[in-house]
Amino acid sequence: MGRIEFVEVSPRDGLQNEAKIISVDDKVALIERAIAAGVRRIEVASFVDPRRVPQMADAEAVVARLPDRDDVVYIGLVMNKRGALRALETRIDEIGAVCVATDRFANANQGQTSLESLEMAKDVVRLAKSAGRRAQITIGASFGCPFEGEVDPDHIVAMARSAVEAGPLEIALADTIGVGVPGEIEALVSRVVAAIAPVPVRVHFHDTRNTGIANVWAAINAGASVVDASIGGLGGCPFAPGAAGNVASEDVAYLLDRSGLDAGLDLDRLIDTSKWLGGVIGRQLPGMLSRVGRFPAVG
Amino acid sequence: MGRIEFVEVSPRDGLQNEAKIISVDDKVALIERAIAAGVRRIEVASFVDPRRVPQMADAEAVVARLPDRDDVVYIGLVMNKRGALRALETRIDEIGAVCVATDRFANANQGQTSLESLEMAKDVVRLAKSAGRRAQITIGASFGCPFEGEVDPDHIVAMARSAVEAGPLEIALADTIGVGVPGEIEALVSRVVAAIAPVPVRVHFHDTRNTGIANVWAAINAGASVVDASIGGLGGCPFAPGAAGNVASEDVAYLLDRSGLDAGLDLDRLIDTSKWLGGVIGRQLPGMLSRVGRFPAVG
Repeated sequence: MGRIEFVEVSPRDGLQNEAKIISVDDKVALIERAIAAGVRRIEVASFVDPRRVPQMADAEAVVARLPDRDDVVYIGLVMNKRGALRALETRIDEIGAVCVATDRFANANQGQTSLESLEMAKDVVRLAKSAGRRAQITIGASFGCPFEGEVDPDHIVAMARSAVEAGPLEIALADTIGVGVPGEIEALVSRVVAAIAPVPVRVHFHDTRNTGIANVWAAINAGASVVDASIGGLGGCPFAPGAAGNVASEDVAYLLDRSGLDAGLDLDRLIDTSKWLGGVIGRQLPGMLSRVGRFPAVG
Repeated sequence: MGRIEFVEVSPRDGLQNEAKIISVDDKVALIERAIAAGVRRIEVASFVDPRRVPQMADAEAVVARLPDRDDVVYIGLVMNKRGALRALETRIDEIGAVCVATDRFANANQGQTSLESLEMAKDVVRLAKSAGRRAQITIGASFGCPFEGEVDPDHIVAMARSAVEAGPLEIALADTIGVGVPGEIEALVSRVVAAIAPVPVRVHFHDTRNTGIANVWAAINAGASVVDASIGGLGGCPFAPGAAGNVASEDVAYLLDRSGLDAGLDLDRLIDTSKWLGGVIGRQLPGMLSRVGRFPAVG
């Protein structure tokens, strides 16, 4: 049975676009439930300007209450050095740095050009590593931009090659607005896997146009070894018009399980947590497994 | 650019499970809109017991009002010879015969064993062909059964081999309850394509566990050349517990279009029709493209 590393992003990417502020108690409960469902790597918060992302204003408070587990990696996302310095004041295990594939999106997201965002992400990785923390880089809008449209795959390969110079533990390719289709995912992931080997490729898909699960499968077939998802399919992006939720963790878990791939996940507990999270948020979340359950009925 | 044949099933499989009876006017309007969006093969009705499927009680009335188009194939689904004889009294172009992969589902669906349903489907094909009509066979529950669980792929290959003896124009494999994952779809479709060549393989997916689009893509990669979908992702099955809608036509059209595959479909008109159909049905339909539109924004 093949092994896939799974990253739960609901506490950060899942929640960040919710208008209703979720309590620290509920955020910590979500993290505890994810761990109980087998998750061992979790994006727990972002260290960003609370005026821009109010939902993340309590990042330090959440991190202070994380379960003390040696076997779980907690990730904090940052957009710049100031955020990285804030994160490094906490016990966070890993810094996630973000750069963006296009100038217009990079400007909306973090007030930079694409190249400036890449250099910043590399600086953040160096800073985190010098502080003894894990660090990685995500390339946002790798498969399409809400402002500029098509993104040249050559540009993504070049960005990934440059990004690995800073020594990140992996490079993540993000379909931030959910426009990719599996053929192009497979083609680009294959190229990036080859370009940065042996550094692993992680993928982050939003399920805006119903291609999320297809893209996860295509990316795995192309050699991606780390997959992001969000319990319930919660998610969105405040700076990406039209972006919908992340692929749902429980839907990804079903795909992996029925495909003979082991990510260490407990599907039934993910489904329970998805239902619980829908109650916290106050609406039916888009993930599908929580509505119908596993197959066969008795796993 | 590759070519995929597309079959719109919303007037039959899409509507059959709706409690609210849709008028003949609206059904004909749906068919006209599908044709205007480029559809050239449409499942327009089923000829089944109206006590079991009240939504299809008006099959003859719908067929009597079909647009008179030489370039469009109209399909009527039947479950037995009596239905076929009813259908042959109309101007329907093509008879769709259904058999089921498992005994318990075949019994729930049509009161037969799996083998009896296969022999019945072959008889229906022979009857239709002798009447000068097109005819094909769909194997229901090819990838999993709501009553029996796992389905042996060897059994599906054997059923397909037997089915082609009657001379159907194609064999369709249906994931009636939406449990398949792309790896197994690709494996089984490849086997059936090889087993019955040059008879084409058609696929019919329900998007119950978020794998619908992934399965369409896997089936195409495995050599399936005909794909079913339903505008808006409408659908369900009265005899299949937990079945959700078909894959949405507009979502499939997006996948195909962005993948460089031509099915002759007009994505914007499908999106418009999906919104219109949601109004007729009285709820938001599950298809995703109608919420966010195409990418890039100007196609």
